[in-house]
Amino acid sequence: MELLIIYLSFGILQCSSVGADSIIHIGAIFEENAARDDEVFQLAISDLSLNDDILQSEKITHSIKYIEPNNPFQAVQEACELMTQGILALVTSTGCASASALQSLTDAMHIPHLYVQRNAEGSPRTACQLNPSPDGERYTLAARPPVRLSDVMLTLVGELRWQKFIVFYDSDYDIRGLQVFLDQTSRQGLDVSLQRVDRNISGVFSNLFTSMRTEELNRYRDTLRRAILLLSPRGAQVFIHQAVETNLASKDSHWVFVNEEISDTEIMELAHSSLGRMTVIRQIFPLWKDSSVSCMRNNHRISSLLCDPQEGYLQSLEVSNLYLYDSVLMLANAFYRKLEDRKWHSMASLNCIRKSTKPWNGGWSMLETIQKGRITGLTGIMDFMDNGSNSHVQFEILGTSFSETFGKDIKRVSSIVQFLVPDIVTQTDILTPYLCVKQPRGKCKQH
Amino acid sequence: MELLIIYLSFGILQCSSVGADSIIHIGAIFEENAARDDEVFQLAISDLSLNDDILQSEKITHSIKYIEPNNPFQAVQEACELMTQGILALVTSTGCASASALQSLTDAMHIPHLYVQRNAEGSPRTACQLNPSPDGERYTLAARPPVRLSDVMLTLVGELRWQKFIVFYDSDYDIRGLQVFLDQTSRQGLDVSLQRVDRNISGVFSNLFTSMRTEELNRYRDTLRRAILLLSPRGAQVFIHQAVETNLASKDSHWVFVNEEISDTEIMELAHSSLGRMTVIRQIFPLWKDSSVSCMRNNHRISSLLCDPQEGYLQSLEVSNLYLYDSVLMLANAFYRKLEDRKWHSMASLNCIRKSTKPWNGGWSMLETIQKGRITGLTGIMDFMDNGSNSHVQFEILGTSFSETFGKDIKRVSSIVQFLVPDIVTQTDILTPYLCVKQPRGKCKQH
Repeated sequence: MELLIIYLSFGILQCSSVGADSIIHIGAIFEENAARDDEVFQLAISDLSLNDDILQSEKITHSIKYIEPNNPFQAVQEACELMTQGILALVTSTGCASASALQSLTDAMHIPHLYVQRNAEGSPRTACQLNPSPDGERYTLAARPPVRLSDVMLTLVGELRWQKFIVFYDSDYDIRGLQVFLDQTSRQGLDVSLQRVDRNISGVFSNLFTSMRTEELNRYRDTLRRAILLLSPRGAQVFIHQAVETNLASKDSHWVFVNEEISDTEIMELAHSSLGRMTVIRQIFPLWKDSSVSCMRNNHRISSLLCDPQEGYLQSLEVSNLYLYDSVLMLANAFYRKLEDRKWHSMASLNCIRKSTKPWNGGWSMLETIQKGRITGLTGIMDFMDNGSNSHVQFEILGTSFSETFGKDIKRVSSIVQFLVPDIVTQTDILTPYLCVKQPRGKCKQH
Repeated sequence: MELLIIYLSFGILQCSSVGADSIIHIGAIFEENAARDDEVFQLAISDLSLNDDILQSEKITHSIKYIEPNNPFQAVQEACELMTQGILALVTSTGCASASALQSLTDAMHIPHLYVQRNAEGSPRTACQLNPSPDGERYTLAARPPVRLSDVMLTLVGELRWQKFIVFYDSDYDIRGLQVFLDQTSRQGLDVSLQRVDRNISGVFSNLFTSMRTEELNRYRDTLRRAILLLSPRGAQVFIHQAVETNLASKDSHWVFVNEEISDTEIMELAHSSLGRMTVIRQIFPLWKDSSVSCMRNNHRISSLLCDPQEGYLQSLEVSNLYLYDSVLMLANAFYRKLEDRKWHSMASLNCIRKSTKPWNGGWSMLETIQKGRITGLTGIMDFMDNGSNSHVQFEILGTSFSETFGKDIKRVSSIVQFLVPDIVTQTDILTPYLCVKQPRGKCKQH
């Protein structure tokens, strides 16, 4: 163990003692096809280095490895190589299969692991089911908040007083994400049917006409009047287009599109292509719209590329990119506090494939420091609950009214419904969410 | 590459050239809490050694590693150690998280992998979602057949003409296994509700009484008249007991218990504890009941412990144990044919964690030989479809009639319904199964 006696001003890392080599090494693992993960991660590191009041001499070293999607063994191989280089923490952005392997690896080696879940092909996300950790010592922190789409859907269905409806979901969507929703609707006696939508969406409807009798088709047309779409934005557009083309949609159809990620442009496209009423549930980051916050978060200046909407770059990012930026900020913040507390455990190289290898003895203390941290970054406030997941998430519900003149007279509905999952949530899966209906932004009444 | 010139008679492995060291090394990975996996695997190896006409001099060497359940990194560590020792094939019996990691490892190293899926805590199984293999070269063969419970349930629900019912499932059950079932029932316009059952089953019902109004409770009682239970045998017993105790079950309740694994004793216990009618869907192994087959399969003699029902041992085994035995037989059969064809690639030690390591050059040829094989073992015929899974599986549907005198007058229903999924199945998920209703065993009409 090495104790560094360093004086730091607030910021992230300002060192009065100058070391030639960086003692701070972060490893990162990204999937090959996610170019922006890499970019934004490096922007975060560079923002930390460029800020005058932080990291004057103490720099963060970083190493990035790229893996194929859905290749957990390759993830282990690359993470082991990073651990041989002596990393203090691992930041990853992958699907669930690789995450599961990396979680058990970092648990075994005591390396703090900030995990950002990536969605498959734009489909709505279901949180990965991770493994129980040995002795309850969990080294993986989920930077993306738990998926709360079920809660929002439940409230919306309640508001709309739907008794019978159909849920269409992407073949990439993991329906275990609907367990809480189905439990609740079943208890309330609602009729919910589920239907998987193949990648080849046009096939869905053409099959119907060949396989169904007229009476069945009529019943199906009736069911389609109230539909929840757990699809990618592009998938939903094709789906509704097909329903309109095949005369299955009607002007009293109500489509509820549910996905954490959909851009303003995609919402407009969706609304334009749909006959009937369209409601959209998506995640929002309210800080973006607050111009007074601009590019400063506490003492940290964010590259204008990432915080100025004028730049256009922000709109091109995926939600996972934003959480990656904030994960780096979270780590830097923890390093700062560790150095300030003079409780710095130096990191040696770990040979993780040899079974006799001892894990990092400073790992748990580092993990605790990260977990206790709280930063304000691109996604708003980030901190972790006891179960290791980020507690902050907000949704909005947008909608059009019923429209007879399909494709032309689409209005934004006046009622903007906004959801705030309480900052501190309990361990139970079902929350009583705060709902603000037809209220000015920010003024909420408890539902 | 090493070519062995060996003359073999039919059997598994009879070598006229005697080698001092075994060239046949099988690695195995089991979960610590599955003692029988270990036992039956070793019985299979010992049966192969004891048979006179096979393996006179050429013995199978085997190495077993034990891992914690749900620890994919440990699985990789142990598998890498086995590969360093130079194994020709890996036999594993684990849950899905470890299987996913082992699949991508064996794909990378070109080591044939016979995988037997273990159920979590006796819950019904949902086949693991494995990763796409690089270049389509898949090294994992699933010894347990795909889960066909959905198909059987669909036919049963059709036979019973159920229009509205509830499905209760274990919290350990992966509801992605219900996708096909839900798709079909939704198309047919059936009302299906889903409800998860926590481990603490008594809590389920006590919650109902505190959270539901009288009208809701009455509706719920009505729904409970037609229920499918995707639970462990023990869980179903407690569940029905609770429903009876709380007066939610009635004498016209119909419970359909669905699980590949449930013993005769457990079925009797379940039927005795239930009010109303009980139907059970489970997997069967018809060969067991055919006394003429006894302990010989082709030329292979199975230890009487494993094939003589009088011994009582067979009844104590889990289905995964049986598939492990047959996996070893399948491998031995492939080794025999490789040696006979004089196409033996010797195996060198692989250092699987070093990224520069070349995979085994004999792997694909060995995999193909295994995949083309066909044996008759404890589970009946075993062979593999193009997608790498065993195609042979049979189910039976057992039942009592409605019974007013709960717990006393339980009769086995006369109609024993037996399912035969066709030997060669297509790639589509939905089969037209062969159904034998009220027909003598073995005589089936197409449904």
